[in-house]
Amino acid sequence: MSRRTTLLLNWYANPYHAPIIVSKTLGYYSDAEINLALLEPSDPSDVTEIVGGGRVDIGLKAMIHTIAARAQRFPVVSIGTLIDEPITGLISLKSAEINKFSDIQGKRVGYVGHFGKRIIDNLAEHAGIDQNSYTAIRVGMNVVDAILDRRVDTGIGFGNFQQIELATRSNQETSMLRIDQLAGLGCCCFCSIQFIMNQQALEADVGMAQRFLLATRRGVDFVIQNPERAFELLGEEFPRLRGDMHKKIFVHMLPFFSRTLLNVERDWQKVFKYTKHLGLTPDGFRMEDCYSNEYVPEEPYSDIKPLACCVT
Amino acid sequence: MSRRTTLLLNWYANPYHAPIIVSKTLGYYSDAEINLALLEPSDPSDVTEIVGGGRVDIGLKAMIHTIAARAQRFPVVSIGTLIDEPITGLISLKSAEINKFSDIQGKRVGYVGHFGKRIIDNLAEHAGIDQNSYTAIRVGMNVVDAILDRRVDTGIGFGNFQQIELATRSNQETSMLRIDQLAGLGCCCFCSIQFIMNQQALEADVGMAQRFLLATRRGVDFVIQNPERAFELLGEEFPRLRGDMHKKIFVHMLPFFSRTLLNVERDWQKVFKYTKHLGLTPDGFRMEDCYSNEYVPEEPYSDIKPLACCVT
Repeated sequence: MSRRTTLLLNWYANPYHAPIIVSKTLGYYSDAEINLALLEPSDPSDVTEIVGGGRVDIGLKAMIHTIAARAQRFPVVSIGTLIDEPITGLISLKSAEINKFSDIQGKRVGYVGHFGKRIIDNLAEHAGIDQNSYTAIRVGMNVVDAILDRRVDTGIGFGNFQQIELATRSNQETSMLRIDQLAGLGCCCFCSIQFIMNQQALEADVGMAQRFLLATRRGVDFVIQNPERAFELLGEEFPRLRGDMHKKIFVHMLPFFSRTLLNVERDWQKVFKYTKHLGLTPDGFRMEDCYSNEYVPEEPYSDIKPLACCVT
Repeated sequence: MSRRTTLLLNWYANPYHAPIIVSKTLGYYSDAEINLALLEPSDPSDVTEIVGGGRVDIGLKAMIHTIAARAQRFPVVSIGTLIDEPITGLISLKSAEINKFSDIQGKRVGYVGHFGKRIIDNLAEHAGIDQNSYTAIRVGMNVVDAILDRRVDTGIGFGNFQQIELATRSNQETSMLRIDQLAGLGCCCFCSIQFIMNQQALEADVGMAQRFLLATRRGVDFVIQNPERAFELLGEEFPRLRGDMHKKIFVHMLPFFSRTLLNVERDWQKVFKYTKHLGLTPDGFRMEDCYSNEYVPEEPYSDIKPLACCVT
């Protein structure tokens, strides 16, 4: 086995990464001749720059950031999807009484990074809310700490993660305003989590991308078929992921793992329109350059003799 | 509220139908001005004929049966997807030692209905197994009873349902040979569960189809966002669905509910090729007549002012 292959996560290792962690633990990457090292970013906003600069082999990043990165001339390409449309929005304690978007007036609103702020400001404009009537505060992915420490009243988080964490740690009722509902997007696909690579590195070794996705696909299959055992494996690899809260997060994640790993054309189109609307992409920007389904395996097995009708 | 709308399930009511049961219990169908009656078939093989004959308004049936029904001139159309590619295969007790397909020789193999037998015989031919070397026995959806009563050694069932039921009721280890792996299909999409309607009835009242799918989509969203509460609601509506076994089945179902309800073009193409291969469809048969995504809602809310970029 040769050099290490580096995968930079979009966050600290957690149930979102179950298919990857399971594939690593069960040796699927080794089977694919990939000696994988998982890296956790201390600031998730760094991922596209580091992948774009070719400093790591593969990264995980939201669809909207992948488009934004290319618009900023970081040559990243999505080679597949890990998580389809996780539900994202403004989470808060019910006691904060943020029940509709206009309730953010007079409140402190946490956002993850630059584009999150753009999204909030644009939604405010759309809803006819003065941008000086609320205070936006950068909190990264640590929105739960920020709410519990009373640094913000609400902030952007995932419904199947930070909202559960907030409810568990506060032992209080919570609420969420879904961004897709605020904007009428029809999906939360802008925050679908993609596998991204530097374009040049990809072209130099497409075999690695294919083998990586094949091994990951085996991991997805395992998680879907054996969720109980998959959760145990997470806890064996990362003891801090044991316990009821992470188990609940894990169960709430199950509907969101992409079972095919395919980039979803329809979602890319929506998000591309959204980035244009937000002014993130220049004229002449080509959405088709942002992703490719060429490297995603048709199915996760290599030892099957297919029926004639199934040969593609 | 006017006449009853009838929905004929593909099986007895169970966790597979969670989005529908939840939508009914929470009044989403009433909100959509649909007074829904759920009907359970005593023989699932009857569904396409009853829907095709216009005797019920909506039915649930597998993708492959929808194509087969149209090939037999039952004018059914899929208006959406409830369950995407549930994993299907030959399930058995580990003690039956059915570890590869050729192990069915000398064994009794349970199948659901006519097409299930065609699939098994075709797989046997593909694997070079004499069709007289095993005994195919029709067991409908009751493969678990048939195995526990020793009427069959193995039979076709869902990995996220009957395999769990078999393991729980026998308190033994089980195994499964996935049909997609045996055939190299690359997916279990032939058994994706579709909402089907009689074409003429659909054309006479497209509004009902749209309202039905919108209400169902709300139910899917609820199940995905509140799985714990959704499971409680199932038990309130059908007390026999309470308990650990059905809870496990419910959790294992979560990845398989279609979150968009869309018919998946790629899967229809695969299954169409498979039905051709099995000799189920005549020359000149048009796959495009089998389904339509015209009635699926873009998103499950009607009270949102969308951003300009999101108006389709």
